[in-house]
Amino acid sequence: MTEKPLILVTNDDGITAPGIRALIKVMNTIGDVVVVAPDSPQSAMGHAITINSTLYCSPITIDDNEQIEYTCSGTPADCVKLAVNEILNRPPDICVSGINHGSNSSINVIYSGTMSAAVEAGIEGIPAIGFSLLDYNWEADFESTKSFVKTITENVLENGLPNGVVLNVNFPKLKADEIKGVKVCRQARAHWVEEFDKRTNPQGRSYYWLTGQFVNEDHGEDTDEWALANGYVSVVPVQFDLTAHHAIQQLNTWKLNE
Amino acid sequence: MTEKPLILVTNDDGITAPGIRALIKVMNTIGDVVVVAPDSPQSAMGHAITINSTLYCSPITIDDNEQIEYTCSGTPADCVKLAVNEILNRPPDICVSGINHGSNSSINVIYSGTMSAAVEAGIEGIPAIGFSLLDYNWEADFESTKSFVKTITENVLENGLPNGVVLNVNFPKLKADEIKGVKVCRQARAHWVEEFDKRTNPQGRSYYWLTGQFVNEDHGEDTDEWALANGYVSVVPVQFDLTAHHAIQQLNTWKLNE
Repeated sequence: MTEKPLILVTNDDGITAPGIRALIKVMNTIGDVVVVAPDSPQSAMGHAITINSTLYCSPITIDDNEQIEYTCSGTPADCVKLAVNEILNRPPDICVSGINHGSNSSINVIYSGTMSAAVEAGIEGIPAIGFSLLDYNWEADFESTKSFVKTITENVLENGLPNGVVLNVNFPKLKADEIKGVKVCRQARAHWVEEFDKRTNPQGRSYYWLTGQFVNEDHGEDTDEWALANGYVSVVPVQFDLTAHHAIQQLNTWKLNE
Repeated sequence: MTEKPLILVTNDDGITAPGIRALIKVMNTIGDVVVVAPDSPQSAMGHAITINSTLYCSPITIDDNEQIEYTCSGTPADCVKLAVNEILNRPPDICVSGINHGSNSSINVIYSGTMSAAVEAGIEGIPAIGFSLLDYNWEADFESTKSFVKTITENVLENGLPNGVVLNVNFPKLKADEIKGVKVCRQARAHWVEEFDKRTNPQGRSYYWLTGQFVNEDHGEDTDEWALANGYVSVVPVQFDLTAHHAIQQLNTWKLNE
């Protein structure tokens, strides 16, 4: 590549989160960086978009590095739509989202704002990666992720991605020299068992907090959960054609037209 | 089935929307109905869940029919989680979501609150269907959908669904005698071309409305878009394992561990 690549950076924890600041630093070593990210945390927003309210988006300076930055009132998917259609003069060569404070492995991909930004970019035909670290702490140490973030991003820039595919990358909470390497995986079949914490507000009305336990019943060694539990960075290729092609033949045996 | 099935009904347009009222009516002819639905419209919420704010959920009576109803301050996915874990004494035999005012065909499945409820139920192991009518009008006529809704629901109750699969059902905006039948389809490869309507607020600050054009570049006759354009009800089996299994081999040729 002779010209520097144009890199769109976003996230779901908000533009001031340490995770996106770490991601911007790495991207500045690879290309020209434009950041369009939410002005406040948007975790667990799934693939929400803003159609019934107004969207604000303004330039902002957070540090004295070379990237250009915009802060946006919308969701991660809104940020990508705004960046591609209003802010950038040409489609970015890649969109990177994160680094998320907390896991987006396994079924969490469904609820993830980080991954919704990557998926939205993929829908727009832009190679995209979501990065997440298995540490919810705001003070999480992103140092060990940096060389992997760089390698994976450069591989995507060099090789492109198959049509309709984006990457979901998760990092174990380990020091750099404890990480064994990178594994390409499938999404583990796991789910959350919800526990609602029921309380009463000062006016006497009941309300709930959603909490839960992550349960992995999938013991395959080709899954992201296995890789992460065994010291590897997991890379899952994610698609947004949700068709369960294997089920079509079976459904065609049903009596739907009688 | 000797006992009446327990049916969970939800949606994303809110509990008073004509679409969910039509769905409840059909479900009352099939089983025991419990409704847990949002207290306000939640369209385009994707698979958002509420983890950073409180959830309210209260019994409500809207008409004098036999269903039990709860209204919830959360998203469609929250409604399903609350229903299954807090409200119902046993897992429902099926969860139906909708009938949405507007299409959830093709890539719209990604943004759809209606389908996020069905997917959430699927994750919890409950057979689930999202129903949508290609008519955004609040006064849309759901009459023509009713016999199909009943047939498809009864088929799912009788046959079950493959593990990890839920159904995305869309109805063309046609009279009952104009509908040619039901087609099992794949999700068409289509996307939205965004158009941001930029305005200035009374304080002089710029803001945007998200609008766009739906563009279908997929002319396959096995797609949901083709079925709907040709007078059929579309049924797409949808999975929440997002792994692009076909891409794993290719990614394994990359130099990710060097």
